[in-house]
Amino acid sequence: MNKIAQRLNDLRTMMEREKLAAVIIPTSDPHQSEYTAEHWKCREFISGFNGSAGTAVVMPHSAALWTDSRYFIAAEEQLSGSGFLLMKEKLEGTPTIAQWIKGELDRARQEGQQPSTEVAIDGMVASASQVRQLVKELRSAGGLTLRTNLDPMRGIWSGRPTLPMNPVQIHPMELAGESCKEKIARIRRALREQHADGMLMARLDDIAWTLNLRGSDVHCTPVFISYLLISSTDATLYIYKEKLTPQVEAYLHENGISTAPYDSIKDGLRQYFEYNILLDPDEVSHTLFKSISCQVVEAASPVPAMKAVKNEAEQLGFKQAMLRDGIAMVQFLQWLDEQGKALSGQSSPAVTELTIAGKLQALRARQPHYRDLSFDTIAAYGPHGAIVHYEPTAESDIPLKAEGLLLLDSGAQYDDGTTDITRTIAMGPLTEEERRVYTLVLKGHLQLQNMVFPDGAAGTQLDAAARMPLWRYGLNYLHGTGHGVGSYLSVHEGPHQIRMEWKPTPLRAGMTVTCEPGIYLAGRFGVRIENTLLIVPAIETEHGHFLRFQPLTLCPIDKRPIITSLLTAEERQWLDSYHQTVYDTLAPHLTADEAAWLSDACAPL
Amino acid sequence: MNKIAQRLNDLRTMMEREKLAAVIIPTSDPHQSEYTAEHWKCREFISGFNGSAGTAVVMPHSAALWTDSRYFIAAEEQLSGSGFLLMKEKLEGTPTIAQWIKGELDRARQEGQQPSTEVAIDGMVASASQVRQLVKELRSAGGLTLRTNLDPMRGIWSGRPTLPMNPVQIHPMELAGESCKEKIARIRRALREQHADGMLMARLDDIAWTLNLRGSDVHCTPVFISYLLISSTDATLYIYKEKLTPQVEAYLHENGISTAPYDSIKDGLRQYFEYNILLDPDEVSHTLFKSISCQVVEAASPVPAMKAVKNEAEQLGFKQAMLRDGIAMVQFLQWLDEQGKALSGQSSPAVTELTIAGKLQALRARQPHYRDLSFDTIAAYGPHGAIVHYEPTAESDIPLKAEGLLLLDSGAQYDDGTTDITRTIAMGPLTEEERRVYTLVLKGHLQLQNMVFPDGAAGTQLDAAARMPLWRYGLNYLHGTGHGVGSYLSVHEGPHQIRMEWKPTPLRAGMTVTCEPGIYLAGRFGVRIENTLLIVPAIETEHGHFLRFQPLTLCPIDKRPIITSLLTAEERQWLDSYHQTVYDTLAPHLTADEAAWLSDACAPL
Repeated sequence: MNKIAQRLNDLRTMMEREKLAAVIIPTSDPHQSEYTAEHWKCREFISGFNGSAGTAVVMPHSAALWTDSRYFIAAEEQLSGSGFLLMKEKLEGTPTIAQWIKGELDRARQEGQQPSTEVAIDGMVASASQVRQLVKELRSAGGLTLRTNLDPMRGIWSGRPTLPMNPVQIHPMELAGESCKEKIARIRRALREQHADGMLMARLDDIAWTLNLRGSDVHCTPVFISYLLISSTDATLYIYKEKLTPQVEAYLHENGISTAPYDSIKDGLRQYFEYNILLDPDEVSHTLFKSISCQVVEAASPVPAMKAVKNEAEQLGFKQAMLRDGIAMVQFLQWLDEQGKALSGQSSPAVTELTIAGKLQALRARQPHYRDLSFDTIAAYGPHGAIVHYEPTAESDIPLKAEGLLLLDSGAQYDDGTTDITRTIAMGPLTEEERRVYTLVLKGHLQLQNMVFPDGAAGTQLDAAARMPLWRYGLNYLHGTGHGVGSYLSVHEGPHQIRMEWKPTPLRAGMTVTCEPGIYLAGRFGVRIENTLLIVPAIETEHGHFLRFQPLTLCPIDKRPIITSLLTAEERQWLDSYHQTVYDTLAPHLTADEAAWLSDACAPL
Repeated sequence: MNKIAQRLNDLRTMMEREKLAAVIIPTSDPHQSEYTAEHWKCREFISGFNGSAGTAVVMPHSAALWTDSRYFIAAEEQLSGSGFLLMKEKLEGTPTIAQWIKGELDRARQEGQQPSTEVAIDGMVASASQVRQLVKELRSAGGLTLRTNLDPMRGIWSGRPTLPMNPVQIHPMELAGESCKEKIARIRRALREQHADGMLMARLDDIAWTLNLRGSDVHCTPVFISYLLISSTDATLYIYKEKLTPQVEAYLHENGISTAPYDSIKDGLRQYFEYNILLDPDEVSHTLFKSISCQVVEAASPVPAMKAVKNEAEQLGFKQAMLRDGIAMVQFLQWLDEQGKALSGQSSPAVTELTIAGKLQALRARQPHYRDLSFDTIAAYGPHGAIVHYEPTAESDIPLKAEGLLLLDSGAQYDDGTTDITRTIAMGPLTEEERRVYTLVLKGHLQLQNMVFPDGAAGTQLDAAARMPLWRYGLNYLHGTGHGVGSYLSVHEGPHQIRMEWKPTPLRAGMTVTCEPGIYLAGRFGVRIENTLLIVPAIETEHGHFLRFQPLTLCPIDKRPIITSLLTAEERQWLDSYHQTVYDTLAPHLTADEAAWLSDACAPL
């Protein structure tokens, strides 16, 4: 029996004992993190699928896993033989979790069984709004009920990683640009506008931003596991004491922040003495939401919208981090060019997806203020490029040849900023289709990046700019076009986004956002071109304030695949002007040899 | 005392008697029509403002009127001296109705009064969802209550027009393309999918579409006042018997439609014998919604989405109606050109906004199958063009000169289709600003009209295509970019729209939609360019089905104001190709003289 089968077996024994029809295991932790500490990777443990998004559902005789388009191909491979059915979200015909459970139960009944109608999910990791939605769907799918007071992994996951105890560090004022005291005062003002006395902060990046602290508890994300409970007069950080150095303890004390053990958050909420508390049902776990005895002001947390707008110190930090990241990228691209020339038809064990990802990481690590990657590098050669969130492993790794396209999506954490960049690179001769798709993705990238738009427009209103050149040729991508980027924090940051689905959050000056259209042709290749941008004022007229994007990312976009005749004069000028900025900014920091390479890479089309 | 003051006086006497803090008078009838019969123009009666959208609120010592950006300038003029304050919707700082009432009451209390806290609205003309929203807002604005069981105009509006008794006509099968029986069967299937046994149809254009009947009860809109109650086995039309000719009675009988008096709809609902009924709270009035005793399935009516997709017969009808409308437009534009040349600096009483609107109407009326205008012609010269929904009156009418821009938005009802077209015409020399704005609006028009997009995209996703060229120059418009157009029905038809606000209705092949970006520069001029389009399949690839627009409108777009260098090569080619189609389609139906004029107007840029 393989590992996954054994685990499913153990889980099903528990389910039989507890009389459960199904167990739902989301990708989640008590803080609604996108990336979680190892301790909370329950869905990966039970299914074997390691993507960043997915929900496993286990029933006595069947199991299924829901994930989004980024992971369709990866999940297909990883789930093969596991007994898990892959459910492709947002495709027509894919049942909801409740519908699927209902169908399975109907089948069991037709076979003469009398299955339980109780479904379980861990209410400590599912958010209040997730549980609410699930309860509704299960009820209308035919009277199913939901149990939330158990951790399905208890007793099943032997050797489960413990919670990390890494020390917390102070994020200096010259990089943060606003003191922790000022931020808490701002949050309290926002709470008063909502007629709330206090709030429970559960999102780890919101806590790190508010307190100007950073940690290393989550892979590639400088956060630390904790809760922050703010009242009209006090603020208490719920955190394991082991994580606090004397320096950090003194800092917290100076700023009037009390501390209490992480595990005592429920007691803390019980002792919260104000009239009411703001809870964001998308942020706070069902269990904590239910443990509140005072009035609840149910509303979106004000913190993500504050954190999203970068102040001057943060903007300066971003520009410095991007300069260093750009230098590392140029060194890498020059090195890769040389490798490509040396290959000339032959492959080499020195140039595989894994080795080039390692080379890029090493070059970034040489830069001052480097801390970590901001996510695992996506180095996807040839057909792997069509797997949207492909990450090479020892098993999947392939050598590069002197032909075709390499899709490289990577980023780093620096003390003063977080980077996220994708380049698609010609390793040698390309097919006509590769060149055409590359050029069309570039057109979409340039159209969005050079847009002017009204202050406060929603990302959904801008999204089509990146897609129109692709749609004209019957091409499209199902993922979002852009997300916020944290200031030495999460590489994916809300609340604003640029995507097809409606996201009403207004875009404002000072926000960072990526621009990353792509096209994925299964079995052939993938193209994505991504810059991180800063939103800045553009123009003010009798029709109001207008905004535009200023690229933060400093790295040439490969010109070799471009079919120039497909670009408009304006698009050519936009690309040339971006390349001029890249060259002018980076060249003074490069060796003569590197600068010469960059000069070629940035020469006008 | 002027008319409006006298009416307000009478209303306030009633308010005092009924102890009302405020009366809300929406633009509405029991059918949620955009354009209503004269009988229901209560808001216009009480305020004097005659725009198609607006809500009047009267309090003992103050009054205010809310309307949208299309009417800001017109309302400002019409309300001047009326005692009504103008409230500009969607502008920052404009209070909601509940907020304003609360503010006024607070002020009265500060002055030592003890005002009533009851607000009234006529529940027979306000929709269930409007009332629901209002109740919520009034409650949270400080305990205000809403009374819905009175018609505020009763006893105040002497000489109020009675309900129209115009005869109903049959819309022939060769134009409708689907029989009334087939439509009702489709509606019943849609109801069953929603687990509903029947529905109450209140929207007049939905009833006309379902029954393949047309009327003339509402200005420019071929509908007739009625309700349609559909059960799983029966269908009853609630209508004044006077409106039914023997032929229509026989037709209804053949199709199994019973009839009952319009006034007896409440009894009809009381006698409805099924288990449940679907009611669309946006469609059904509060009073009728509340009069239901069986289970209510609250959901969007399935009818607008069915009606929006035109069948082959309707598409053919549109094309024939557009051909005739195009001929009339060409005759008009040629005539206008000649008038413009004759003016040469001088104005003439023969060429004013009103006379040219009359000339255009006369030319349309000469066309076979002409029935009526589809809305009052907007003929707006010079600064009047900046008043989005300007309609010339005897008081506002101005003569045209041989310079500047004329904005002309017009349309007609033909037996086989409804038209809606805007052209902005150079009457002579233009300023640089007029030319630049005209060219940018044209770019937006061409960008949207020539878009390819995924089947099922929402209008909001497409909207920016028309705005991007304008935004780049700090220009914007606050109205929607496109709406559906009925098949010899309402000129504004839902449920799909193209606009900035989120409208999730998917765009599908067979839908009609307008493309009408515009720019309005107060005190100077306005530009709008509008075609009516048909959505058709474009391309199918591994990424799905894609759609595109086929222009239905056949009329040249004035080339004289264009700054050619601002257009891309693609945009020039799009315009030339549209003009080629216009010429090829219309020329065979024109006199030699008209064809020669059109040939010039359609010559490549």
